[in-house]
Amino acid sequence: MDNYRIALDAIFHALSDPTRRAVVQRLGEGPATVSELSEPFDMALPSFMKHMRVLEESGLVSSSKSGRVRTCTLEQQKLAAAERWFEEQRALWSSRYENLDKLLEQLQGEDNGS
Amino acid sequence: MDNYRIALDAIFHALSDPTRRAVVQRLGEGPATVSELSEPFDMALPSFMKHMRVLEESGLVSSSKSGRVRTCTLEQQKLAAAERWFEEQRALWSSRYENLDKLLEQLQGEDNGS
Repeated sequence: MDNYRIALDAIFHALSDPTRRAVVQRLGEGPATVSELSEPFDMALPSFMKHMRVLEESGLVSSSKSGRVRTCTLEQQKLAAAERWFEEQRALWSSRYENLDKLLEQLQGEDNGS
Repeated sequence: MDNYRIALDAIFHALSDPTRRAVVQRLGEGPATVSELSEPFDMALPSFMKHMRVLEESGLVSSSKSGRVRTCTLEQQKLAAAERWFEEQRALWSSRYENLDKLLEQLQGEDNGS
């Protein structure tokens, strides 16, 4: 659970920047090299590489190097973990409302019985 | 679209901390006062208030004051905007795959026809 929390901290932090979200979107189409990924951005390479490091540190992106070319891949299961957090919230809230509904039904039943 | 991007920056930043995610989760059950919200955390009030400010600045939480009591409310539509980002990614990727499927079918059709 603690690992999951730490992972979520890093994943949500990684997603809090438009450049990094755009890279995630691009990698959803398939692996790409760093130069392909940086191409749409009007940004110095060192600045772009900082964003890539944040993405790698969050686990959202992995990379491998062949010669001078680094190829990046999206780790879909990490993105799914962040999305699951939203689903968990909804599940928690709806279970509370269901319990409240049951309690109200019970109270109404008792009222009718008295 | 730019407003949406700026909103996502702030919302994902707000969600990148476990205390703030726990507050969002609690507020999903209904409005609560600041003292109710801070109660589960072993944290000085000024530190907790910093987290509340980040949540308010992101638009995820709104608050109103009556006398000395500040009551906080979750802005569900902001949370939904962040969740929608994940859905948009999936929609984009699947439409690309569909286009690829169509292209492959077309190429196979041409192959069979020749």
